[in-house]
Amino acid sequence: MLADIRIVMVNTTHSGNIGAAARAMKNMGLAQLTLVDPIACIDDEAIQRASRADEILHNAVIVDTLEEAIADCHWVVGTSARSRHIPWPLLTPRQCAAKAAAIAPQGNRIAVVFGRESRGLTNEELHLCHAHVHIPTDENFSSLNVAQAIQLISYEMRLAALALATPGDDATGTMDQPWGVEWDHPLASHGDVNGMMLHLEQTLLDIGFLDPNTPKQLMSRLRRLFQRAALDTTEVNILRGILATVQRQHTQGVVSDSTQAPNGDEQHDQTTA
Amino acid sequence: MLADIRIVMVNTTHSGNIGAAARAMKNMGLAQLTLVDPIACIDDEAIQRASRADEILHNAVIVDTLEEAIADCHWVVGTSARSRHIPWPLLTPRQCAAKAAAIAPQGNRIAVVFGRESRGLTNEELHLCHAHVHIPTDENFSSLNVAQAIQLISYEMRLAALALATPGDDATGTMDQPWGVEWDHPLASHGDVNGMMLHLEQTLLDIGFLDPNTPKQLMSRLRRLFQRAALDTTEVNILRGILATVQRQHTQGVVSDSTQAPNGDEQHDQTTA
Repeated sequence: MLADIRIVMVNTTHSGNIGAAARAMKNMGLAQLTLVDPIACIDDEAIQRASRADEILHNAVIVDTLEEAIADCHWVVGTSARSRHIPWPLLTPRQCAAKAAAIAPQGNRIAVVFGRESRGLTNEELHLCHAHVHIPTDENFSSLNVAQAIQLISYEMRLAALALATPGDDATGTMDQPWGVEWDHPLASHGDVNGMMLHLEQTLLDIGFLDPNTPKQLMSRLRRLFQRAALDTTEVNILRGILATVQRQHTQGVVSDSTQAPNGDEQHDQTTA
Repeated sequence: MLADIRIVMVNTTHSGNIGAAARAMKNMGLAQLTLVDPIACIDDEAIQRASRADEILHNAVIVDTLEEAIADCHWVVGTSARSRHIPWPLLTPRQCAAKAAAIAPQGNRIAVVFGRESRGLTNEELHLCHAHVHIPTDENFSSLNVAQAIQLISYEMRLAALALATPGDDATGTMDQPWGVEWDHPLASHGDVNGMMLHLEQTLLDIGFLDPNTPKQLMSRLRRLFQRAALDTTEVNILRGILATVQRQHTQGVVSDSTQAPNGDEQHDQTTA
């Protein structure tokens, strides 16, 4: 399970934090580190703080966007210090680890995303996640160092992995399957779901339901809905099939309209009257 | 309870670790720091790493011996990376926090003792403790940074304190909300979701995606998807709005087709007949 968990750090400013994160990960048996557009580089400070976990630094994957970092992941959790304007499924670190333990054995890749030292993740980044995890800090001093946050999440992941290895130990209350039962199709990857969401957005634009000039809450709400359902591959295929059918029919309708009816809707009313 | 817990650092070498420890403590609501014969002093590095937890540094008590640091405490736990030659009561961090939560309300003072960066606590120091706590690190890389260890223990203490404050909550986080967070709209009733599902089914029939002669697995899969997402009322309204738009456009397309193309396909002719 621990090998399937990717730690993603976004726009990290201090190289020491990257090093400390690598050490924290290795202490808990994690190994996959992805840096999204890092501001700090892997310098002497990073290597010194990593102690003997520098191989995690050397193997770290560096990408330009969060999308790239999580494209092949099946479940993505973003760390969030505070509640946002649209509520999103929220887990404690322990619940997050229990969920990871439930889905990792089926070959699902998991990412936990950590934001900037100064201001965490943006709403847009948080909306790419299936769920958010909040570390229960003191209300009056909630700004946790990013490497410390990675330490805590990695610790809970390790405990959940240990509980998986010794069934019967219910300390973390693990569910044995993502939905409490053996599922019939594999979970869709983030990239698959994202492709479906783009398809949905285009379809809603086509049929005039989504006005591109209004705020993005409509798409955020739909994204939240489908992400929290944790779609499987068959469901993504069904939804895309529906969207393709709607688009095809819409295009035919538009073409019919323009070739047939210069005076538009009036004629429809007359015809059906 | 958290006010009764003292963090004791023995012979700390790096001032940055003292600062990071202060921040970790304050994040979790702890405040009492005692330094036993520190090698590092509270310098700029310590204050910088403490972020805004520097009042813990200013209030830190500095003593010469571990004996002095724990003299007035009722329960003392020492952190131990490895088993020692004489077995000692050993707890996990979670068990340690549960024990602290059990005894703190009776006015007992608790100390958790952390050793040197290089080699932890001596056997003699460990033997001053009532029990030992072991953080379950990877066997091949068990050397945890001392501030990270303080973060983990403080986190478990905080969870235990929160569980104390809300009896009945099992420290894995409240689940009294469908998604672990206060939601912005009420959950939809079964009737609302059912109405949406019938609307979806009719729309899929209208656009020809659902063939009424095939088995019903398509609708079952869609129902499973939307039901496990536990839709809220706004989501139901959005989905029904999309469906109504698709139906309206489809009807217009069909009408256009039939009025424009007398040799169009049979089904359209029948529909408008």
